[in-house]
Amino acid sequence: MPLESPPTSLPLTRDSVLAAHELIKPHIHRTPVLTSRTLDGFASTPRSTTIEGIHNARSVDAGDAAKPKIGFVFKAENLQRGGAFKIRGATHALSHLTPLQASKGVITHSSGNHAQALAIASSSHIPPIPCTVIMPSISTPSKIAATKGYGANVVFSGSTAPEREAKVLEEQSKTGATLIPPYDHPWILLGQGTVALELIEQAEGVGRKLDAIIAPCGGGGLLSGIATACEGTGIKVFGAEPRKDGGNDCERGLRRGKRVEEVKTLTIADGLRTPTGVITYGIIEKKVEGVFSVTEWEILQATRLVLERLKVVVEPSAVVGLAVALFDEGFRKLVEEEGGEEGWNVGVVFSGGNTTVEMLGGVFGREEEFRGQQDELLRQVF
Amino acid sequence: MPLESPPTSLPLTRDSVLAAHELIKPHIHRTPVLTSRTLDGFASTPRSTTIEGIHNARSVDAGDAAKPKIGFVFKAENLQRGGAFKIRGATHALSHLTPLQASKGVITHSSGNHAQALAIASSSHIPPIPCTVIMPSISTPSKIAATKGYGANVVFSGSTAPEREAKVLEEQSKTGATLIPPYDHPWILLGQGTVALELIEQAEGVGRKLDAIIAPCGGGGLLSGIATACEGTGIKVFGAEPRKDGGNDCERGLRRGKRVEEVKTLTIADGLRTPTGVITYGIIEKKVEGVFSVTEWEILQATRLVLERLKVVVEPSAVVGLAVALFDEGFRKLVEEEGGEEGWNVGVVFSGGNTTVEMLGGVFGREEEFRGQQDELLRQVF
Repeated sequence: MPLESPPTSLPLTRDSVLAAHELIKPHIHRTPVLTSRTLDGFASTPRSTTIEGIHNARSVDAGDAAKPKIGFVFKAENLQRGGAFKIRGATHALSHLTPLQASKGVITHSSGNHAQALAIASSSHIPPIPCTVIMPSISTPSKIAATKGYGANVVFSGSTAPEREAKVLEEQSKTGATLIPPYDHPWILLGQGTVALELIEQAEGVGRKLDAIIAPCGGGGLLSGIATACEGTGIKVFGAEPRKDGGNDCERGLRRGKRVEEVKTLTIADGLRTPTGVITYGIIEKKVEGVFSVTEWEILQATRLVLERLKVVVEPSAVVGLAVALFDEGFRKLVEEEGGEEGWNVGVVFSGGNTTVEMLGGVFGREEEFRGQQDELLRQVF
Repeated sequence: MPLESPPTSLPLTRDSVLAAHELIKPHIHRTPVLTSRTLDGFASTPRSTTIEGIHNARSVDAGDAAKPKIGFVFKAENLQRGGAFKIRGATHALSHLTPLQASKGVITHSSGNHAQALAIASSSHIPPIPCTVIMPSISTPSKIAATKGYGANVVFSGSTAPEREAKVLEEQSKTGATLIPPYDHPWILLGQGTVALELIEQAEGVGRKLDAIIAPCGGGGLLSGIATACEGTGIKVFGAEPRKDGGNDCERGLRRGKRVEEVKTLTIADGLRTPTGVITYGIIEKKVEGVFSVTEWEILQATRLVLERLKVVVEPSAVVGLAVALFDEGFRKLVEEEGGEEGWNVGVVFSGGNTTVEMLGGVFGREEEFRGQQDELLRQVF
C-alpha cells in the first residue's frame, strides 16, 4: 500500500506562491542577500584565464571561452530557521491542515533538512502539532539527537525505503497523522517558491534587477517552486545538479524527454541525491529554462569561495548554482549571448548550511581525489 | 632611531569616536548583528551541566556553578570590508592626513589584517593614496599575493622587528610616507571604537539594550576604542585574551599593575599574539571593567559553535569574547550577581573572518591535543 499525500486543489501558480508567503511570513526569517565584487569578478572572467588556480577547472581555449558579465545576488537560506529553506515548505504545509488533522499530528520519513524543518515548524506552531519522524535506526546519534532536540518524536525503522514506508503506515494507523512529504507536493513546493519573492525584492533593494535565478535541484521542490513564483516576471529560472554517478537526473531526464526515476549517487552534495519528483519534474519541464550540472571538484571550489570570501557557512549542496555560473560553459555562453555588454544579474539560492567542521574537513581532504575525477566526470555522456 | 607615529591632539573621548564614525561611515559596511537562542541557552546553563559535551570544559561543582542569564548580540565584523574591523581604524587614520601627507603615501609593517585594511582603504580613497606594506620575505605567497591584490606596494624585509623597522625608515626616507601603526595610535583606536556605536544601536533594534560588551584584546586598539566609545553610557566593557603561553598579557599586566611588554605565544588566536600597546593599555586600565582569558580548547569550541550554529565563518581570534561568556566562571559569576534574574544582554564583537579551510582544518585537527592541555592552562598561576 503506497503512502498517501494529503489531497489539495491549490493551483500551481505565482498567485499561490504569493498567498503562501503571506501565510508563512510571520514564522520564517527574511534571510539576507549577499553580494561580492570578488565573486562577480571571477564569474565575469573568461575561464581560459586562471584565477588563483580555480578558474581553469575545465580546459577551455582562450578563443572559445565565454565572456559573460555576471552580477550575483546570493540569497542566504543557510541563515534560515533550521539552517535551510525547508522551513518554508513545512510551515506552509502545516497552515493547510484542518484543526482535526493538526490535532492528530504530522509524520515524515525524510531524515535530512526536511525532517528538522517539520519538527521546528510543528513545535513552534500555536498550538503545537505532534510531529513524528521515521529514521533508520542506523542514523548517526547526533542527527537523532538534533531531530529530538527540535521537538520531534523519533521512531526507528530499517534503512530501505519499503521498511521506512511500512513504518509510516504503521504509525499512521495508530495516530491518524498526516504525511508531509519532503518535496513532491503542492504545499511544499509553493512554500519553497516564496524564497524567490524575497530574493527578487531584495535584489532590487541592492540595485540589481534580476535577469535569472539559479537554484539547486534534488527532489525539485525548491526549483519548481521558484519557477512557479517567477512566472510572468520575465526572470529566467535555471536548475543546478551534481554530475557524479548520474546525480544530474533532472538534466538527463530533460535531455531524453522522460523523468529519471532512480538515482544512486554518493555526491558530496548530499542534499541533492534524491531523484526529482513526479509533480516537481512536470513543473520543471514546463517552466525552467535549463538544468546544468557540475563536478565534485567544482562544487568544492564554490564551497571554498563562499566560506573564505563571503564568510558564511554553506553545505556543498547549497553552492551548485554558484558552481554552474562559475564553471559551466553552456550557462556562461548563454549569459554572454543574452546578457550582452550589460550582462545579467543572477540570483543564486544558497539552500542550506547544515554541516559540521568534521564534514567540511572530510570533503576538503578529498580535494585531490576530486581533481583527479574532474576530466572523467566531464567526459561523461548522457 | 625609533619609528615615528604621526602627531595628533585628538582627545580620547566618546565624542571623538562619534566624530570618527561620521568620517568613516560612507566607506565601511554597517555589518549585521546576529542573535541565537541556542547560544543564549548554552551561556545561560550552569557549567556543571554538560551540553553536547561542550559545557564541562572546566570542571565546576554543581553547587558552585554560576547561573547567569545571558542574551547575546553578536556584531559580525567578519563580514566587514577586508574581513575584519581593521578597516575602521585605517580609514579613520587616512581621513586625518593632510593633502600633502596623502600624496606621499602611507606605510605599515604589520602583515596581518591591518595591512590588508590599510591597502583597501588607501586604494579606494579618492584620490587613491600610495600604500607600502613591509612584509617579511618569508611570508606565505598567498598572503603576499592578497596584499598586492588589495593594491599595496609590498616591500620585503627580514623577519625580526628591528629588520622590519629599519626597512620602514629606509622607505620613508625615500618617499616621505606616513607610518600608520596597527593599534597604538588615537586615529586607529578611535576608528575601531566606532564598532561599539553601531552595536549599541543595532542591539536596541533587536530589542536588547546592552549591559556589557566583550571584545578581543591583542594590541588593544579595538578594546580601548570600544571602552572610549562606551564612556558615560553605563555599558560595561570587558576584554578577552588567549591564555596560552602567557598570551593573556593584558590580564596579567592589570593584575600586577604594570603593562607586560613582551609576549611570545603560539595561540591559535593568531590575531591576538601581540602585547597590548602603551596608549591602549593606559585606556584599558582606566576604562575597562575586566579582562578574562580562555584556553585553546575553549577558543576552538566557540569557533565550532559559531561556524555550525550561527553559520558564519570566523577566525579563532574573533571568538575569544564568546568563549569567555561560555566558560569563564569569573565572568559568569559577575553576570549572575549583577544581572540577577533579568540577566545581561551582552554584545560580543566577532573581530574578523580571515581564514581558510586549510587553517580551520588544521586547528580542528588539533582538538584532542588542546583538550589535553586544558587542565594545564587552567592551573597556570599569573
